[in-house]
Amino acid sequence: MARMEKIRIGMVGGGEGAFIGAVHRHAAALDGQYELVCGAFSRDAGNNQRTGDSLSLDAARVYASWETLLEKELKLPEQERMEVLVIVTPNHLHVPISIAAMEAGFHVFCEKPAALNLAEAKSLKSHLDNNNVLYGLAHTYIGYPMVWQARQMVLNGQLGNVRKVYVEYPQGWLTASEETSNKQASWRTDPSQSGGSGCMGDIGTHAFGLLEFILSQKVTHLCADLNTVVEGRRLDDDGAALIRTEKGASGVLIASQVCAGEENALKIRVYGDKGGLEWQQMEPNSVIYRPLGEPYRVYRAGGGQPGLYDEAAARCRTPGGHPEGYLEAMANLYTAFAKAVRAKQTGTAEGVPGLTSGIRGMAFIDAMLSSSKSETKWQAIPDTE
Amino acid sequence: MARMEKIRIGMVGGGEGAFIGAVHRHAAALDGQYELVCGAFSRDAGNNQRTGDSLSLDAARVYASWETLLEKELKLPEQERMEVLVIVTPNHLHVPISIAAMEAGFHVFCEKPAALNLAEAKSLKSHLDNNNVLYGLAHTYIGYPMVWQARQMVLNGQLGNVRKVYVEYPQGWLTASEETSNKQASWRTDPSQSGGSGCMGDIGTHAFGLLEFILSQKVTHLCADLNTVVEGRRLDDDGAALIRTEKGASGVLIASQVCAGEENALKIRVYGDKGGLEWQQMEPNSVIYRPLGEPYRVYRAGGGQPGLYDEAAARCRTPGGHPEGYLEAMANLYTAFAKAVRAKQTGTAEGVPGLTSGIRGMAFIDAMLSSSKSETKWQAIPDTE
Amino acid sequence: MARMEKIRIGMVGGGEGAFIGAVHRHAAALDGQYELVCGAFSRDAGNNQRTGDSLSLDAARVYASWETLLEKELKLPEQERMEVLVIVTPNHLHVPISIAAMEAGFHVFCEKPAALNLAEAKSLKSHLDNNNVLYGLAHTYIGYPMVWQARQMVLNGQLGNVRKVYVEYPQGWLTASEETSNKQASWRTDPSQSGGSGCMGDIGTHAFGLLEFILSQKVTHLCADLNTVVEGRRLDDDGAALIRTEKGASGVLIASQVCAGEENALKIRVYGDKGGLEWQQMEPNSVIYRPLGEPYRVYRAGGGQPGLYDEAAARCRTPGGHPEGYLEAMANLYTAFAKAVRAKQTGTAEGVPGLTSGIRGMAFIDAMLSSSKSETKWQAIPDTE
Amino acid sequence: MARMEKIRIGMVGGGEGAFIGAVHRHAAALDGQYELVCGAFSRDAGNNQRTGDSLSLDAARVYASWETLLEKELKLPEQERMEVLVIVTPNHLHVPISIAAMEAGFHVFCEKPAALNLAEAKSLKSHLDNNNVLYGLAHTYIGYPMVWQARQMVLNGQLGNVRKVYVEYPQGWLTASEETSNKQASWRTDPSQSGGSGCMGDIGTHAFGLLEFILSQKVTHLCADLNTVVEGRRLDDDGAALIRTEKGASGVLIASQVCAGEENALKIRVYGDKGGLEWQQMEPNSVIYRPLGEPYRVYRAGGGQPGLYDEAAARCRTPGGHPEGYLEAMANLYTAFAKAVRAKQTGTAEGVPGLTSGIRGMAFIDAMLSSSKSETKWQAIPDTE
Repeated sequence: MARMEKIRIGMVGGGEGAFIGAVHRHAAALDGQYELVCGAFSRDAGNNQRTGDSLSLDAARVYASWETLLEKELKLPEQERMEVLVIVTPNHLHVPISIAAMEAGFHVFCEKPAALNLAEAKSLKSHLDNNNVLYGLAHTYIGYPMVWQARQMVLNGQLGNVRKVYVEYPQGWLTASEETSNKQASWRTDPSQSGGSGCMGDIGTHAFGLLEFILSQKVTHLCADLNTVVEGRRLDDDGAALIRTEKGASGVLIASQVCAGEENALKIRVYGDKGGLEWQQMEPNSVIYRPLGEPYRVYRAGGGQPGLYDEAAARCRTPGGHPEGYLEAMANLYTAFAKAVRAKQTGTAEGVPGLTSGIRGMAFIDAMLSSSKSETKWQAIPDTE
Repeated sequence: MARMEKIRIGMVGGGEGAFIGAVHRHAAALDGQYELVCGAFSRDAGNNQRTGDSLSLDAARVYASWETLLEKELKLPEQERMEVLVIVTPNHLHVPISIAAMEAGFHVFCEKPAALNLAEAKSLKSHLDNNNVLYGLAHTYIGYPMVWQARQMVLNGQLGNVRKVYVEYPQGWLTASEETSNKQASWRTDPSQSGGSGCMGDIGTHAFGLLEFILSQKVTHLCADLNTVVEGRRLDDDGAALIRTEKGASGVLIASQVCAGEENALKIRVYGDKGGLEWQQMEPNSVIYRPLGEPYRVYRAGGGQPGLYDEAAARCRTPGGHPEGYLEAMANLYTAFAKAVRAKQTGTAEGVPGLTSGIRGMAFIDAMLSSSKSETKWQAIPDTE
Repeated sequence: MARMEKIRIGMVGGGEGAFIGAVHRHAAALDGQYELVCGAFSRDAGNNQRTGDSLSLDAARVYASWETLLEKELKLPEQERMEVLVIVTPNHLHVPISIAAMEAGFHVFCEKPAALNLAEAKSLKSHLDNNNVLYGLAHTYIGYPMVWQARQMVLNGQLGNVRKVYVEYPQGWLTASEETSNKQASWRTDPSQSGGSGCMGDIGTHAFGLLEFILSQKVTHLCADLNTVVEGRRLDDDGAALIRTEKGASGVLIASQVCAGEENALKIRVYGDKGGLEWQQMEPNSVIYRPLGEPYRVYRAGGGQPGLYDEAAARCRTPGGHPEGYLEAMANLYTAFAKAVRAKQTGTAEGVPGLTSGIRGMAFIDAMLSSSKSETKWQAIPDTE
Repeated sequence: MARMEKIRIGMVGGGEGAFIGAVHRHAAALDGQYELVCGAFSRDAGNNQRTGDSLSLDAARVYASWETLLEKELKLPEQERMEVLVIVTPNHLHVPISIAAMEAGFHVFCEKPAALNLAEAKSLKSHLDNNNVLYGLAHTYIGYPMVWQARQMVLNGQLGNVRKVYVEYPQGWLTASEETSNKQASWRTDPSQSGGSGCMGDIGTHAFGLLEFILSQKVTHLCADLNTVVEGRRLDDDGAALIRTEKGASGVLIASQVCAGEENALKIRVYGDKGGLEWQQMEPNSVIYRPLGEPYRVYRAGGGQPGLYDEAAARCRTPGGHPEGYLEAMANLYTAFAKAVRAKQTGTAEGVPGLTSGIRGMAFIDAMLSSSKSETKWQAIPDTE
């Protein structure tokens, strides 16, 4: 075995005061697979420089804009040059930067959503196909080991034929209006930066993506009710939908940001004719399994834990009893992405949500917005593959 | 204070092999307010007699039919005669027996549902109004102390303006088809005995009643999806609805009997602009309160427990730390009913769901059935008061 | 089958303001096996009469003292006369009343502790042996279905050889001194009424009895540290002990009444070489089972629940998902006692802690008091059978 | 602000197949403060080289032994040279390597325990004092934000005068004998590599350190019972102790590795005259607070969460609802250590357990071993500061 070189990453966005940029840096660092070599962290020059300094970056590689970053990095020798660009800007920049980066031959790892809407997401496809690069999307919850456990339980028939699915994502941080609440709220509730949906784009897509991932089947129809609960807000901050899947299951999807006191209480339950399962993001190291006619049992994350599928066990760093969390989940995406980079794969990295997931999420949002305005009950979600 | 005489009750239904009859007897006995004096427990003479014997009844007051029971009891001296008739038969007999009992001057305490449908429920009203009797309905969950705590929290503004409500009642006992599952399943899934709805009539009404009780406001519109998941079953065994309330809250109601492995996981969450609350039937002695901007706290049932409203505290028999459960919840209904009997009230007993609740439940079922068949999204629930 | 006559009980103690008397009445009533026919509830005549009236008793059978009660009941015709005397007085009266009642030929069902100390408890033995009566002791926690489940799990080898046991009973109600806290505190912390130990007599015995019951083996040695945490209190309000059992297991027993904020958090964990189990009184309807090398699983109380031993299932009144609690646990003792009364058994009623348990509890308290004063580490508990 | 240079670390131990070395590397990487520049990972040359390669190390700085590592690094220019040595070898090498590293002028960050026994731990002191270096000890649990929250709650009087403390650390991984269980078991149960105690050295010290940290006071006396439960094992695999603290609190400490099915269920409860608290390692993001006479409440980890002390909030990387875990706890120690390195502090890094903690842990083990062999009840723990 030869020495493993670290993969060189750059970052757009994620200056002081941003939340998700730091999360990506922690996650990329955790497994020692990456080295941050450059960034364009903020349009504010001082912020940009301070961020670069705090990250031990060479000042010459802290760029004033993402355009400059791409231009200058391209001119560096290949063995120094950034290989992967991490995009953690507000949503409306995801697509322009992704396209430019891919066209310049860089892999892209993008914070979700992939785009502002379905059309924009689809526009990424040709750029990805034509440039021999990888595209990864930070649907972080897909990085949790026990989400993989749940998926494998379904795939291996532990539930039998799936009939019911309930997925919910209640948050409370937008209970009060933007003036009095978190600064993060401002751009997330601004249509020009965030897209056509607020709550559904921000967290509804997580719930939807988790559901389709664990079920390994598509939602085909939904009947939605979106609300703007807080007066003066310009986008939906709440919603729910009845859903139906391609193989005949039905269920409910809930996402809300006005559930006072709730943190990130993402939870999914799936029931088939042989059993049910339950997973919660805030206690992510357990999956409850309810086999029909037996006492319920609990699978626990961790190396050497009984009953884990390989897909789950491989995503644990520590033996049972050492709780891993959100950063480790995202790190699992980064590490899977690194593996694909090293293997010189293109398109989608195995184990990492890619453009297909991004397009799917946009189709979901479009359908939710359309359904919510309609007086007809059921709305089809277009089949995007 | 004079000696408190026990109230004399009779029972129709509840022979060997029935579940809910025994529950009513336990509940009626618990607080020492009632004496069971007669019954018509089963159309099977042997079952009927054995049940009467096991309950220490005088054989002369174990009657072959409910008609005989009413006729014979009426002929007894007033101070011996049954005062309250408890009805625990299959659903289709609830109304005929209720009417006959009220017309004979007996108070009625009826297992839910009040009737098979809205029209039948409404037909009870004139009989109740004209006979100076009480009518109580065993919406048992309304008997839990912490359900009253939740209601008072809403009424006292601890949540502010209510915006969201989620109520769910997943069960698993009908996951397999009737042939292989519980005997209880047979009549509950038979339209002629159970009414037009299976799951919604059986447990959806509980979820709905709990929701309107805790909110102290009405659901005005719903958008339902009912399913018959298990092949060959004649009634819905599953469903969900988007809902809207009279004061502008929205939410979701879920009821299902095919959620493999679930017991009676009735749960309600309510969120306002000042906080949220959560209560679960299977851990009924806690209410979680999430005041906006403060750590969440937990109210606990029991005498002397901090933060309880009188309405909750008065429904606890023991100090904190002694779990009370389902039988105590129903006993709270029976004891409130006894108080009303002694006070010679008529119509509805304070603290006990009455005919208004019964009619409301039927309006809900009718609206659910109608909505589920419709291609239009929203269905109004008629205002029944 | 002949008609089942109710068993006639009388009660000493349990007037207005008492806690445990009402608990016994609820429990005795729950299953319809008993009829309360007489009582001497309080030395305060007004309280006594009001209590009797509220319980629908014939005024002639509300007696001024327990001596009068025994004397007058004996003169009644056998088919009217009380059969079982329930003793719910302060502790120091348990033995005198028990002896008098047994000598008069009445069965005794006594609130714990059986006596003030070991010698007094042993003095009961000859009276029990000589009078063809039953003696039951309200070690209420032994009435929980899932305590029986745990015991059967041990007996059936699901844990293998038992090595470790931890039992704890933290309460908080004596955190503040008697002047400012619960009225119940006054007699419980008065040595003349309560015996030589406060906390250990009140709740330590529960922990100890539960431990020996679930293990089906005896604790042989202990090393105790008792404390009087609150200044001015005359008895221990806290303590803990290292323990060893006859078959070589070791562990810890904790009981305290100064754990601020705790209710009745009785909990037991047992570990063998094949697995472990855990049960908690405040969520009494579950037993966690941790089989070595498998995901842990949870047995749940209720009719028809998977994995329950007959001994547990027989103590549930309702199907899974209907929580039963403390009153049902005590009712299980009463109902088992009723069965033994009807079967004309003497001595101990199957399924009900009897005098042997009472003596055992006193031996435990004596050993704890002795050990706590000693500078030697280990103290033997005398083998009391 | 100038560019933040990464701190250069080396590692001894932690080759393929080791558990804790990888944990240290994840933790050191997480916040981007360190760069791993050299190592001596294994005495097996192949393992050593493969580990270095997988960590992207320059082959020239993967050394055959820790002695070579120190010798060669010292010869490198100061701006390239390792600054901190991380020691993750078996226990018996902790002291020799620590001394050599400190004498060579390197900071030391050592996996616990600091030494094999009290005398050896004390021998470190002069080397630390004389060399202007820092010494950090990986008592990882001290890195959890909510452990700091608990400590601050005590310090700020939220509990009043502390009276009781229960700390327990049940594990199950040594339930079966070494032949059939985890490979990790072999050296941990070998006295020559592990020291005089097995379970107490391995996890008892964690429980003890956590207790003294949260209480901000010392345990002065204990009464211990240590056991070797599994036949043939050479060190204790289980134990418990009654304890007393310097300010008059009492309690219990439990540590066991034969509790079948338990993972790392470290838990602490503290009670004072104004309230109690509870924290569990396996759900580390909550602290339960039970203020006397109020509903209990739950503090939750995360940026912006209500009620957090600065000491807790500063140790969270993400907003509420994003679970952080064990690696983040250790990363908090690493990051605090980095801050002290940059500030050119010596001795102990603020917020990181140091030699004082290490000596304290050894005093605890010595006292436990001594007490367990004694027939006298109480054993004093020497005051080590």
